Amino acid sequence: MTTTITITAFESSPDRGRGLARDMRVRWALEETGQPYDVRLVSFEAMKKPAHLALQPFGQIPTYEEGDLALFESGAIVLRIAERRPGLLPADADARSRAIAWMFAALSTVEPPIVEREMATYVERGKDWFEARRPILEERIRTRLDQLSRRLGDAPWLDGDFSAGDLLMVTVLRRLESSGLLDATPNLPAYIARGVARPAYKRAFAAQLAVFEAARKA
Amino acid sequence: MTTTITITAFESSPDRGRGLARDMRVRWALEETGQPYDVRLVSFEAMKKPAHLALQPFGQIPTYEEGDLALFESGAIVLRIAERRPGLLPADADARSRAIAWMFAALSTVEPPIVEREMATYVERGKDWFEARRPILEERIRTRLDQLSRRLGDAPWLDGDFSAGDLLMVTVLRRLESSGLLDATPNLPAYIARGVARPAYKRAFAAQLAVFEAARKA
Repeated sequence: MTTTITITAFESSPDRGRGLARDMRVRWALEETGQPYDVRLVSFEAMKKPAHLALQPFGQIPTYEEGDLALFESGAIVLRIAERRPGLLPADADARSRAIAWMFAALSTVEPPIVEREMATYVERGKDWFEARRPILEERIRTRLDQLSRRLGDAPWLDGDFSAGDLLMVTVLRRLESSGLLDATPNLPAYIARGVARPAYKRAFAAQLAVFEAARKA
Repeated sequence: MTTTITITAFESSPDRGRGLARDMRVRWALEETGQPYDVRLVSFEAMKKPAHLALQPFGQIPTYEEGDLALFESGAIVLRIAERRPGLLPADADARSRAIAWMFAALSTVEPPIVEREMATYVERGKDWFEARRPILEERIRTRLDQLSRRLGDAPWLDGDFSAGDLLMVTVLRRLESSGLLDATPNLPAYIARGVARPAYKRAFAAQLAVFEAARKA
């Protein structure tokens, strides 16, 4: 008997079904490892209420419930999934640690300046310093992209076979797809393209898009 | 026979020995698990050179070398240490996943707005928007601190016994010690105090302080 896995996602996708919300990472990992899952949709109001905060102390999505276990943080959820089923982490212990290093690199080193640029767009667009700060924010992102691009080189994935590190890095880089910032490092759009061409990615993407389409019709 | 562990740290500590650089996390984890280690000091110039970039593609410290394994990202290094020796992760698989969730929460949810405020101080202090943006930056940090404080409540640690999640969270919160931002949530300074009172923390702190003192005398 398999325990049912339930994740949470936005009831109303802020990106209009582009798959940039963090439930996409968990959906993709579940698809790569061939596991069915249920989705509970939560509204922005419900995310700040005690029932959701008991699962996710910072009032975000996704969460992950499996039997008695309740988890939060997309990185930790993807790691949990990757540890229990083959497909997302190498068998060799050292290679496994290196794949996990790329998971942390995606979330703690590459993603923060990308989120910062998005936050400025949401919060500070009307401020008189918005345009003046833009080159500062973009330069920080470019530095990380240059470093990542140099490390990736001609390889298909960051370290050997596709891993949970690549899964997170592709989802992080996708946040820049409409920014133009990826143009200077063509191996990174090609890397994203390899990620999103994976059948598991496509199934996960279709599932989150279906939520948006259903909400639009409702 | 034990393989020698070598980590890297700043040759010249930018915080003057206050233990805020990320090698402190790795030193603390090694002390909690009773493992000796060597330290290779690197200059800011050397960090941008090919030899260091081969170990750390983003030109940062710390790195971790153990036999044939080379790792980067303090979160991944602490997790590697925690997985191989008792003391930093619970034995129960679900509790272990929850401790790892707090590791990711520390580095991907709590730390980024704290680093953002520091970056503004370094990079934008002279700009005419610096003062106007300060409340925006501080409000983002306060939101996270309020949420963390509510979750911690009266407990000594975030989830059961002290774990690698607490280790990372304490080092992240210490970055705010001189900011005044912790005053509104007194359980958080008390939580930091419990962390830094641990004998392993004290040994790690003394070791990084010795590097600063030696450099000052040289």
